[in-house]
Amino acid sequence: MSNFYVGVDVGGTTVKIGIFSHVGELLEKWEIPTRTENDGEFILPDIVNSIEAKREERGGNILGIGMGIPGPMTEDGVVLKCTNFGWGVFNVRNTMADMTGVGKVKVGNDANVAALGEVWKGGGRGHDSIVMVTLGTGVGGGIIQNGKVMTGSQGAAGEIGHIKVEFNNPAQCGCGCKGCLETYASATGIVRMAKENLPDKSKLADLEEITAKEVFDQAKAGDQYAMSVVDRFARYLGIALSNIAHVVDPEAFVIGGGVSAAGPIITDLVSKYYNEYAMYALKDKEFHLAELGNDAGIYGAVRMVLF
Amino acid sequence: MSNFYVGVDVGGTTVKIGIFSHVGELLEKWEIPTRTENDGEFILPDIVNSIEAKREERGGNILGIGMGIPGPMTEDGVVLKCTNFGWGVFNVRNTMADMTGVGKVKVGNDANVAALGEVWKGGGRGHDSIVMVTLGTGVGGGIIQNGKVMTGSQGAAGEIGHIKVEFNNPAQCGCGCKGCLETYASATGIVRMAKENLPDKSKLADLEEITAKEVFDQAKAGDQYAMSVVDRFARYLGIALSNIAHVVDPEAFVIGGGVSAAGPIITDLVSKYYNEYAMYALKDKEFHLAELGNDAGIYGAVRMVLF
Repeated sequence: MSNFYVGVDVGGTTVKIGIFSHVGELLEKWEIPTRTENDGEFILPDIVNSIEAKREERGGNILGIGMGIPGPMTEDGVVLKCTNFGWGVFNVRNTMADMTGVGKVKVGNDANVAALGEVWKGGGRGHDSIVMVTLGTGVGGGIIQNGKVMTGSQGAAGEIGHIKVEFNNPAQCGCGCKGCLETYASATGIVRMAKENLPDKSKLADLEEITAKEVFDQAKAGDQYAMSVVDRFARYLGIALSNIAHVVDPEAFVIGGGVSAAGPIITDLVSKYYNEYAMYALKDKEFHLAELGNDAGIYGAVRMVLF
Repeated sequence: MSNFYVGVDVGGTTVKIGIFSHVGELLEKWEIPTRTENDGEFILPDIVNSIEAKREERGGNILGIGMGIPGPMTEDGVVLKCTNFGWGVFNVRNTMADMTGVGKVKVGNDANVAALGEVWKGGGRGHDSIVMVTLGTGVGGGIIQNGKVMTGSQGAAGEIGHIKVEFNNPAQCGCGCKGCLETYASATGIVRMAKENLPDKSKLADLEEITAKEVFDQAKAGDQYAMSVVDRFARYLGIALSNIAHVVDPEAFVIGGGVSAAGPIITDLVSKYYNEYAMYALKDKEFHLAELGNDAGIYGAVRMVLF
């Protein structure tokens, strides 16, 4: 019946919640659905009810709540836009503090919070300053400098999926621009590239549906065309990470998200291209795969209110 | 006979030195030559002697010394490489503190320090977080976040001249890479672009020597070819600043260096291209011209030890 901390990772379909000890041990975790109807008005109450039920079950008090949200957030905890949920602009931190009576509440952007989790307990362990890139349906990023999340003046720091990496016949991005990293390095982008000039002799041509995983699997199995797609992916990501390094000069890069399940082939190739594009003072950074998977968010969230 | 602070900007040919009051007023400034012979061993003694002579003349005590150096610097004041001076790796801060007996000494990279000067008393006034780009013979950068210089893990944060902005037949950069911003947005790069396909009908073709200033002057006077060169310059710079914004999300950009003397034509065009390449959350940042000129370095240097 001891006191505890809570880490919350609010995703588009589920909310992940973790209970942590005062030294940051994960004691218990569970998920609830994210109810996005009615402009997302149930999301915070659902979270508060779920945490409160757990508190009654466990006993003890909640010492702090950290939370990651998929939208630009200011350092004060104001969400600036969250199209997934239909949320307007409001102070999530203060709202959560009022609803729970817990004084220590911090809220951050989900990609930034996941980066904090990885630098604390995952692939970025032992580093103070990392750049984390999350390769999923889209491409997200989180930048940690001196152990802290970089938020930016309007909560849009680390939006690295929209760095431009191609100007010659660039692909259209959902953001309205062209040539964004996301259109080449996300799972969606990899599949699009694979379909572009797919030759009959590639094993990928025999598949009913091409996935990013299949592209990597066939590349590892020796399919030359699949390898050329992986190579394009790695070159674009290497360019983007090199450009980022010229801005913030991190100690290491951590690559996560569903696509990163392909393993060391990614860090090997991306670091090769990174070094090709980085100036001498920035070459030979460390490249790590993320290690916490779906738990990075709850770890990073609770880290904001721990210690 | 009151006490004072000293700001020092160590350049490749001259050292600029300023005396400041405790509220940051510039009281007096002068220059001495930078003696780079014998692997730069005279540089620091020359500075110390010059400051000491001024102290005897003015009376009072030196309360702090801030210094900008043209090389990557750690936050502890260790210079990592300074090819201009032939300096190896050593702690400049501790050396200066020992030689002067002044306890409060801080040393930073010159471009970062100039950015700090501009955010304090120049074009970035009123902002906490800016990106400053210096367009001279090369392209330098300085990033200020929450009022502080971003150094990076190895002193190479803000090396934005080497962000890659062209992949299609990219120009060779002095750093060994190709397609760096510096090869398009520096004075040297503008002149190179102007010479590339120079048509006889352009006014630039009549000049004995093309300079970046001439390119801007002829563009303003209506020369179409000169305007096309300025447009290329602005597009490359807009791309780079947009990429930087996706990493650090500053409040504003400040553009300085010799090329920026061309005036508002630069901020007008660069902000236009910036908005074309920036995602929605990052559009419409402020663009300012630097205001302190050659004094940015001494202002920024002293700012590090003031307050």
